[in-house]
Formats: sequence, structure tokens, C-alpha cells
Amino acid sequence: MSPFTGSAGHTGTWHHLRVTCDDTAEGVVTVTLARPDKLNALTFGAYADLRDLLAELAREKKTRALVLAGEGRGFCSGGDVDEIIGATLGMDTARILDFNRMTGQVVRAIREAPFPVVAAVHGAAAGAGAVLALAADFRVADPTARFAFLFTRVGLSGGDMGAAYLLPRVVGLGHATRILMLGDPVRAPEAERIGLISQLTEEGQAHEAAQRLARRLAEGPALAYAQTKALLTAELDLPLAAAVEMDAATQALLMHSADYAEFHAAFTEKRNPKWQGR
Amino acid sequence: MSPFTGSAGHTGTWHHLRVTCDDTAEGVVTVTLARPDKLNALTFGAYADLRDLLAELAREKKTRALVLAGEGRGFCSGGDVDEIIGATLGMDTARILDFNRMTGQVVRAIREAPFPVVAAVHGAAAGAGAVLALAADFRVADPTARFAFLFTRVGLSGGDMGAAYLLPRVVGLGHATRILMLGDPVRAPEAERIGLISQLTEEGQAHEAAQRLARRLAEGPALAYAQTKALLTAELDLPLAAAVEMDAATQALLMHSADYAEFHAAFTEKRNPKWQGR
Amino acid sequence: MSPFTGSAGHTGTWHHLRVTCDDTAEGVVTVTLARPDKLNALTFGAYADLRDLLAELAREKKTRALVLAGEGRGFCSGGDVDEIIGATLGMDTARILDFNRMTGQVVRAIREAPFPVVAAVHGAAAGAGAVLALAADFRVADPTARFAFLFTRVGLSGGDMGAAYLLPRVVGLGHATRILMLGDPVRAPEAERIGLISQLTEEGQAHEAAQRLARRLAEGPALAYAQTKALLTAELDLPLAAAVEMDAATQALLMHSADYAEFHAAFTEKRNPKWQGR
Repeated sequence: MSPFTGSAGHTGTWHHLRVTCDDTAEGVVTVTLARPDKLNALTFGAYADLRDLLAELAREKKTRALVLAGEGRGFCSGGDVDEIIGATLGMDTARILDFNRMTGQVVRAIREAPFPVVAAVHGAAAGAGAVLALAADFRVADPTARFAFLFTRVGLSGGDMGAAYLLPRVVGLGHATRILMLGDPVRAPEAERIGLISQLTEEGQAHEAAQRLARRLAEGPALAYAQTKALLTAELDLPLAAAVEMDAATQALLMHSADYAEFHAAFTEKRNPKWQGR
Repeated sequence: MSPFTGSAGHTGTWHHLRVTCDDTAEGVVTVTLARPDKLNALTFGAYADLRDLLAELAREKKTRALVLAGEGRGFCSGGDVDEIIGATLGMDTARILDFNRMTGQVVRAIREAPFPVVAAVHGAAAGAGAVLALAADFRVADPTARFAFLFTRVGLSGGDMGAAYLLPRVVGLGHATRILMLGDPVRAPEAERIGLISQLTEEGQAHEAAQRLARRLAEGPALAYAQTKALLTAELDLPLAAAVEMDAATQALLMHSADYAEFHAAFTEKRNPKWQGR
Repeated sequence: MSPFTGSAGHTGTWHHLRVTCDDTAEGVVTVTLARPDKLNALTFGAYADLRDLLAELAREKKTRALVLAGEGRGFCSGGDVDEIIGATLGMDTARILDFNRMTGQVVRAIREAPFPVVAAVHGAAAGAGAVLALAADFRVADPTARFAFLFTRVGLSGGDMGAAYLLPRVVGLGHATRILMLGDPVRAPEAERIGLISQLTEEGQAHEAAQRLARRLAEGPALAYAQTKALLTAELDLPLAAAVEMDAATQALLMHSADYAEFHAAFTEKRNPKWQGR
């Protein structure tokens, strides 16, 4: 728990997401999109809860790994056609900008979270659902996974929520242009081939594999993982010289960490390290 | 047609390129490099025409998709050894810089054009020809396609016309270093494997497939496609936070577009949308 | 040899590296990590020698290509657990930062060297050894090669020595996150598939193939190669417009070079060019 707490409170109930903590794996939080009858289509409330939940978890400092999953037939079908697309048609300029900024804030919150985020993907990851998966650090997917950045199919820009920034940096500009411009689905074999999937599992095993990965991350040197993520996120936007300096300062910091000393002690004593994540 | 016209005129005849508009597909312009006896080697006039044509098409606002193709045995063999390499040997410093800036302007014009560019590649795409294909949004190629960034083979830098910027962002720094430094040809199977080809066709089908793709783009939500391209181009050079903000503003803009409203109406009425590209 | 020499001297003996010049291939320098009983684990002295050697070679201007190799069972097992990890545990803040800056300077020296660097990789390239190979322009590897960015396994950040900058630009952000965060080894088939290997050789042939490549680079248009590398390094950090301008100025410069004129003369006379590298 963070030693730096102020007045902000703890949210007792998230109305638009299912948030669970695994009693057997300290530090693992699972966030489930749970509107299975709507293929987990996102609502205004779901975006707001994702934004606020990620800020709260970052502040409270108990989370060491987060799993993002979808209940039922697929991961997430994106913004709800009625509840979001229909509603935005009646919005004025300021409100429509607020909405689009909110969705982008969710992506920034995932990229800037001080813990790794593991997306467990089966079935459809469409529209905003595809971008949520793209923003995660790991995409653990089974062979039914289907990524569809279908924004142009509803008349919108393929660059939604940072997708035009992230996708070229994950799969290269050629594939990203084709995928974002045309909105054609990317099925699991292609997704694996072009580097969009981090780990391909047997059918029906994405959730369990994502949980295993999250437990591994939470039980390991969690501060080292968090800093690795922070550097990967920052250095996409830094020149080489600044990146090298940032690495040096970070590594110097971690060489004073408990886990680094513990590694050396364990190595010397020929035993496994007991990671504390600090 | 653009409502914002000034004094600049319309060029009746392009002497160094063949420029055709398909009567059956509004908004599709095909630009053909047509010196088949020279494998479509580029001349000073061809570079100048490409630069000026792209500026004119961008200004006139009738083009929704452009196909760039080569006549005869291949796509383009690059700068003509006699007419360009020979001529540059006698140029003074200012003129030689003007020439190299002009070729770079063609690449910038392709990347910044307010419509997608589809390169139809068969046979050799060599030197500047390889960079023209690289600058396109889509590379539709058949199995005879052969990309050769052979600049070092004539004693020049592999970073010609933005190639040292673009190629690492398409295929990664490792492949790009090897390809630009050594100048070895990249044949279709490798090009597809590393993400340099957007769509691989049957032999002899690259032109027809490129035309089909261009028609699909011109008949679809063309404003959404144009903005997707603009964001992909811009966000290679932006940090995450700025990219997310740019996406939000663009998406807010497009949520006031005719095509977005049309998508929702068509979805509600269970019919296909009639895209207007605005 | 550089016409611009000052007071700095020539180092007669490198105590922590084996540095050899091939008499049969002018301009090729081979640097061998030669502590085979320790899998070529790096020491403070080895880092310092790499930093100083690269600066000296850059200054003296005789080197046209450098091979970096490891003696014995593998390429390099990274920082020595006793001599480096143990020692850093007792260092104060300033000294520990100096150490991490030094390792980063080696990577910058490789990326900014005015000649291509070819890593010959067999067996383990682990920790800092993996980053040295990553910083090279070419990774020539045999099927025994195994890249392990195992920093988190010792409680440190995966972003060591610029790895969080370089690896996403070589293999994409998805693979890079997985590899740097988890520290799992990347074996030769995967390394080739994701673009981490430039050239895969038969078993036991990495050294010979790296030497062949270095000889080809040294005997070719070496100034063109050096400028290609400089542009690739610089343009990762430049926006498109600046990159295109940098290419134009560089190409204009090289169009006044001896090698460019020689290419045209040789082409006209139907003979092979005699490259001078100037």
C-alpha cells in the first residue's frame, strides 16, 4: 500500500466492470468486461470506470499485475452501437471531445500504469476492444482471437485511442496501415505472425494462461518489471542519448533495491531468490 | 472539387508520366511510369512531374485513391544511369542539393497526400523505385516483385529520399540496416515475411488487385481513410500523449461527419451504408 | 588515417579485450571477448576498454568494419556475477551511476561509430552481452545462438544500456515487452523469425561469415556504408521532414565523392568499380 495517501477515497463498487482480487495471488487484480449478452460492448460508464480504476490502482500501489478479460463469447466488441454511437450523434462539440479524450485516457492509463497489464483475448477484440488489447503489455490469446480495428467501417478514423501511434510500433507501418485503414479482421495465426500476440495458447486457455503470467509477474521482482515497462513506454518517445541516460539512472536506482541484493545473496547461497518487489 | 481554389491552374498534359482517371471509378487516379524500354527509369522530368502532380491532386480534392504502377517488365528501375547519375556528376553544389531535395519532396508528397496511395509492384522496384513503393500506403505485389535499395552499389547512401526513416519503421531496424547497407535485392517471399508487402497476388495480378483496392478505398468512407493516413503519418513523429490527443480531436471531428451519421442510420435500418466521403 | 590528429595517443595494448587486425583485409578490426572460462563475462575493465577502443578507432579513421566476437562456448554471458554484481552492491550513488553510464556509453559508441559493427554470435548472448549484439548493425548468428535479456532475473530493469530503446525498434513493442520483461531466452529460430538475426549461418560458421561480411564492407564503398549507418541511427530520432532533408544533404555530399564518380566510370566502361571508400 502506498505510504503517500491523501484525501482520495477507495471505490467500494465498480458498477460497470467486475473487479476481483485473487486471494491465492497477492497483487493480481482481474478486471472483467462483463456484459456477455452484448459481447462486452463498452458503455460510457465502462470507459469511465476503466479510467478511474486504473488511476486508483496506480495510487494505492497494491497491484503488481492486472489481467483484463472478457466474459462469454469474446473479449470485447468495442463501443456499443446504440449506447455510444447513437448517443454521440446528438452531442455538441465540447461533449464529443470529452468523450474521445476519456477513451484516450484509458489507453494512456494502461500504458502508464506502474504494473504490467495482461489482456486475455478469446473471440472478438473489436474497435475499442482491439485498442484496449493493443495497449496492454501482453496479449495472451487463444486461436479463436480475432482483432478488428473496424473504425473506418463506421465512418471514423482508424487512429482511435492511440491506435495510429501504437500499432505501427507493434507490427510495423505497413501492416498497421492495412489493418487500420481497411478495418479487416486479423485472425490469430496472422496476429501471431506479425507480432500482435505475445503468447498463443490452446483453445479456451487464454484466461488461465493470462492468470499464470500475472501470478508470475506479481510473485517476481515487481519493481524491476514496473521499471522495465516504464522505460519501454517512455523510450518510444526519446532519442537514443536520452534513453541511454534514463536506463543508466534507473539501473543505478535499482542497484540499491532489496531485490538486487537478494538476487546476489541467493546466487551466492545457491538458492532461489525471495523477491519482495522493492 | 475543392471549394478553396486560387490562381493555380490545372496541368493539361503530364509529359513524363501517364495519368489516367478511371471513368468507372470516381476518384481513382492511376499514375503509370511509362518508359518500358528503360524499365521505367526516372528522369529529372519524371521526379518533377510526380512532385507537381501530387501537389495538384491534393489541392484539387477530387482524388480519393491513387495507384502508382509501372509499364512493361517491372515497376521502376530507379534513377536513370545516364540521364541522372551522369548528369549529377557535372552539377555544382546548389544544383545537386536541389535535385536531392526534389526527390525527397516526392516522398513527402506521397506520405502527406490526403488520399491513400497504392503501389502496384511487379518485377524490379530498384533504387528510387523501391523508395517510391516504400512511401506508398499499400504495396500490392506479385511473386515477381523484387525490391532493391541499391544506393550503396553506386557509391551513395542507403538513406535516399527518406528510406533510412521509412524502412526501419516498416520492417524494423535489423532488416532495414541489412537491406539499405548492402543493397541486396529483397524478393517477394522475404518482402512478405518481413512486412514490406501489404498484399501478395498471383503472378500478373498486381495491377488489377491494386485497382480493386483503390476502387474500394474511393467508394468507401474516404474522409475516414484520409484521416487514418494523416494520423499514421503524423504519429510516427509524436509522443504518446500528443498522439492520443490528436486521435481524440480527429475522432470528435469525424463524429460530426455525414458518413458517421450514415453508418448509424444504415445499421439501424439494416442496410448497407451509402458512403459520401465527407 | 585521419588528417585531424591531436595529442591523444594510440593504445598499445588492450588488457581486457583481444583486438586484431586482419593483414589480408585492410580496415577490418576484430574485437574478441576472451575470457572463455567465464563465458566471456564482462568486467569493469572490459567495458572501459570497449568504450575507449571504439573512441580511438573512430578518431584514427582506419577502421572500415568491426567484428565483435566471443571466444569459446558462447558470445558473452554479460556482467560478471562476482566482479560486477557483487562489487556494485558496495558502491555509493555516484559510482553506481558512473558504472551504468559507462555501459550505456559503449552502446552509444557502437551505434555512433563511423563504421558498421558486425556481431558474430554463437551460444549465449546474455544480459549486457545481448545488448552489445543488439547494438551492432549486423547480428550474424549460428543455430546455437541464444539471446537472453535476463536483467529482471537479477532484480534489475530490462531497459539496460539502451535495450528498451533499441529492441522495440528492431522487433516491435510486443515482442520487446515480452523479452525484456520476462527475461526468457530467445533461441535462434525465434530470433530469426522476429528480425533479431541479420544472417543465420550453419552451426559453427558465425565467425567466418561475420569476417566475410566485414571484408565485403571494408572493400566496398565504405563512406557510403558509414553514411547509411549514420542516417539509420539519426533518423530513428527525427521526424519525416528532417529525415528527408538530412538524406538530401547527405546524398548531395556523396554525389561529389570519388566512389560515385568511379561507379559511373566503371559502368560506362563495363567493368567493376574500384572502391576507395571516399
